Amino acid sequence: MKTIKYGLSAISLAIGLAASGISLSVSATEPTLSETDFDKAKLQYFQRCAGCHGTLRKGATGKNLEPENTIKKGQKRLEKIIAYGTEGGMNNFDDLFTKEEITNMATFIQMTPPVPPEMSLEQMRSHTKQYVDPKDYPSKPMHGLNWENFFVVIERDAGKAAIIDGDTKKIVKHIDTGYAVHVIKGTEHHKVDHAKDVGRFWYTIGRDGKVNKIDLWQTPDNMLVAETKMAYDARDIAVSGDGKYVIAGGYWPAHFVIMDAVTLNPLKVVSTRGYNTKGEFINEARVAAIYTAPNTSSFIVAVKETGQMLQVDYNDLDNLTITSIASAEFLHDGFFDPTGRYFQIAANASNAMVVVDTQDRALEKIIPVDSLPHPGPGANWVDEECGSVAGTTHLGVGLVSVWGNDPMGNPDQAWKLCYEVETDGAGVFIRTHENSDYVWADQLKHPEPEIQQSVQVFDKKTREIVKTIRVTEEEGKAALHMEFNKGGTEVWVSVWNRKDAKNPTGEIVVYDAKTLKEKARIKGLTTPTGKFNVYNRMNHKT
Amino acid sequence: MKTIKYGLSAISLAIGLAASGISLSVSATEPTLSETDFDKAKLQYFQRCAGCHGTLRKGATGKNLEPENTIKKGQKRLEKIIAYGTEGGMNNFDDLFTKEEITNMATFIQMTPPVPPEMSLEQMRSHTKQYVDPKDYPSKPMHGLNWENFFVVIERDAGKAAIIDGDTKKIVKHIDTGYAVHVIKGTEHHKVDHAKDVGRFWYTIGRDGKVNKIDLWQTPDNMLVAETKMAYDARDIAVSGDGKYVIAGGYWPAHFVIMDAVTLNPLKVVSTRGYNTKGEFINEARVAAIYTAPNTSSFIVAVKETGQMLQVDYNDLDNLTITSIASAEFLHDGFFDPTGRYFQIAANASNAMVVVDTQDRALEKIIPVDSLPHPGPGANWVDEECGSVAGTTHLGVGLVSVWGNDPMGNPDQAWKLCYEVETDGAGVFIRTHENSDYVWADQLKHPEPEIQQSVQVFDKKTREIVKTIRVTEEEGKAALHMEFNKGGTEVWVSVWNRKDAKNPTGEIVVYDAKTLKEKARIKGLTTPTGKFNVYNRMNHKT
Repeated sequence: MKTIKYGLSAISLAIGLAASGISLSVSATEPTLSETDFDKAKLQYFQRCAGCHGTLRKGATGKNLEPENTIKKGQKRLEKIIAYGTEGGMNNFDDLFTKEEITNMATFIQMTPPVPPEMSLEQMRSHTKQYVDPKDYPSKPMHGLNWENFFVVIERDAGKAAIIDGDTKKIVKHIDTGYAVHVIKGTEHHKVDHAKDVGRFWYTIGRDGKVNKIDLWQTPDNMLVAETKMAYDARDIAVSGDGKYVIAGGYWPAHFVIMDAVTLNPLKVVSTRGYNTKGEFINEARVAAIYTAPNTSSFIVAVKETGQMLQVDYNDLDNLTITSIASAEFLHDGFFDPTGRYFQIAANASNAMVVVDTQDRALEKIIPVDSLPHPGPGANWVDEECGSVAGTTHLGVGLVSVWGNDPMGNPDQAWKLCYEVETDGAGVFIRTHENSDYVWADQLKHPEPEIQQSVQVFDKKTREIVKTIRVTEEEGKAALHMEFNKGGTEVWVSVWNRKDAKNPTGEIVVYDAKTLKEKARIKGLTTPTGKFNVYNRMNHKT
Repeated sequence: MKTIKYGLSAISLAIGLAASGISLSVSATEPTLSETDFDKAKLQYFQRCAGCHGTLRKGATGKNLEPENTIKKGQKRLEKIIAYGTEGGMNNFDDLFTKEEITNMATFIQMTPPVPPEMSLEQMRSHTKQYVDPKDYPSKPMHGLNWENFFVVIERDAGKAAIIDGDTKKIVKHIDTGYAVHVIKGTEHHKVDHAKDVGRFWYTIGRDGKVNKIDLWQTPDNMLVAETKMAYDARDIAVSGDGKYVIAGGYWPAHFVIMDAVTLNPLKVVSTRGYNTKGEFINEARVAAIYTAPNTSSFIVAVKETGQMLQVDYNDLDNLTITSIASAEFLHDGFFDPTGRYFQIAANASNAMVVVDTQDRALEKIIPVDSLPHPGPGANWVDEECGSVAGTTHLGVGLVSVWGNDPMGNPDQAWKLCYEVETDGAGVFIRTHENSDYVWADQLKHPEPEIQQSVQVFDKKTREIVKTIRVTEEEGKAALHMEFNKGGTEVWVSVWNRKDAKNPTGEIVVYDAKTLKEKARIKGLTTPTGKFNVYNRMNHKT
């Protein structure tokens, strides 16, 4: 075993080649773990920590956890932080990890972060398989159900997606997907490109990079039709307006992959590694959000750590045109305005909403909001004073911020804060429907159970909270994520548990969108998270 | 010191996060060097080996030299290869390195390659300086010389550029530049964007990433006006059609940088790391060639290892649009056709010339040629049968390949081999002029001195070699790189030595372009390499 050492002095070599940026020697104070404990901690770190802190531990939503920072804190202090969390927003993990696991994790994060491998197009292709041959796809729905009012529901801890009939509230099928699916998207009505059978095919992206294709016209047992894998860690997916391509974005490797939407065969991979808006190189430049731009033949790819919004033409994959729109760090989740021209996305480390103009392929505006905006699926509606508006919840504060988003109709109000609504707790998701008088916000990030278990509803007209709804009172459970049904007459809210990870359960509670009264509870679900109503999503009804 | 070990088994972790791609532990058989010898070998490797084998030793023009390959060969065999070269194209280094240096280099390449650091925009900016304040630039030439017939000449081993008066053959000035300048480019006449004072400003790029700006209107002592540094290792540079931006490409870090052409202040950096045409991730994705597209407001950036031709719009740096044209590996050096629409570039590992259509921003054609094409500045002329044609020399064979390049006027001949001319030896540069009947090719890669010291001239009409010119007979010297003067009446050929690296010399030999007879010898130059005639380069006279 040889130690290669580099001093800063080596950087000044006459011809300018400086020494290694990767330290191959580690300080004598760096603690150690057995190979077994190291591998276990590495796996747990990936599952529970990498999302916020990064696989390479450079930090993003969470703090930088490289040895130069963690060793200073010391084993005991790190164990405490992991166990009990911090005021700064770090969750407590004493309910998820054992004492020994906390000790090992505190040690692991003082060690040099292991760099995961790359993934080639060929490796991805080796994972591609057809459960149903495309030539055997039916030409009409093979069941008598009202599939346009189906809800496609992520069952996070089960690695499944549930198909629920919105009319009968019955679970049609639990479909095997990747680990902890983050998002599911289907084909949408597009203003330029017109896909066949809009709303029929849905695509899931797992945190493990697994992509699954669901055909809602099949008999329930045949709905899972194809599968592939495009990364080791991933978060978002979209389908092109013409329905020909699926695009998914990787956390690691930092890239996006365009697949054939029929077979899921990976066709093109593009790295997102690059420079942030300050001109610093970012190796772990993760793809946070991917959307299809409804008015142009292009995808929007948000790269978290570089603050670059990539507008990617899908017309010619061999001669691929991308506009890289420099905005703000760290990009997270976003949604389109009602016209489909502007994409509104949270830059949560900048406490701002970034607006991109997909027609001019340029930055439109950066709107300062409060601490850590997070709109989830977002909400657009009409305000009497400001005209067309949109809103976001915040991870850092109980507040819904509302801004004007109609620069043609209401230029004086556009891209400025119109008003704010204080809620009881910081939240993750906001949602409304054009037929509804109300906007719903969850409070998932608040530490108190009674608040975490309640969602708040405010009136579009009075801008006042009209009701706080305690969705569940079960210990260890929280309420999150709202979705309207096809007609906008019902709101579905998820109930989710994080405490009992070994035996996770959950339910969806259905409310009357007008009276705000409970109508039904859908049981038999495992940690239901995101829910996607087929009709609303194919028609951009937000 | 702690060893982190990864087995292949770890790759199959349930959730897909595989183990480190970077081995932090090294085999017990890996040899060692003292810190001093390691640093010295690292520097020599960078100066003499990295160009072909890559800083990370993944290989490109040269072989992969990672420990898994080199350790198998063993110390003795490696020493022999370094000292005496191979039939495969590896040069001998027994004349450049001492015995001890060869021994240490053989050891160094069996060790894990050190990864050089990144370079941020801020770091680049710290190198930017003005030798002459732009507000003090003169409004007319400050000397009575015919600056449009100046030759800007690289003096490779001196780290200088010589300005030579083409009328008097006198050296106007030796200007300090970066180490081993690879290319010098000036503003050119452009069909869309029109720069002020075309041909006045010239920009050098050193192998050390240093960029220097030369103002030919200044008095000789003031010609060096600005400087910056955009990489640790670099090869090519270009100026935008409007004269506002300079772009330079890095070998390490793998990126390109767009600078303000007035001050050289770096404005934008874009990573070129990404996937090759097979979909494999390439960390060391080096920028080989950069040109301004004469008909559009864009640059052409050729990324060697990924085979991607990037067409980069320079109109809006904040919302930067790039078309990534997938072609073939490894891209090297190229030139435009006479219309300025098509860029013709060698993909030397594919034994092909790649043609890119800068109007449609798409791959036009891949033309198979012979072993390792290398056109240098290239040559376009008119052939009686095939119409407009272009030609290339080859590093691997004594052959000039000529293809049709006029798809509008001669569609049947376009992008097909028209004819080939056998030369005595493999060469690096080809050149002609519209007023000349002849095409010139050097034979720098041939091992025999008498051939290496001779250039060959063939007739555009008869396609036959009309003369072999022995440019020098001095021991250890070779002839390379031809450039015509403003009127096309003279051909300037460099004489260059590689043997006596400690006391390098050289000269330029001037020939009458019609009689092919020697006219003059310009002495007092250090390893003159590339030469750029101001008028010809600003008017695309090739």
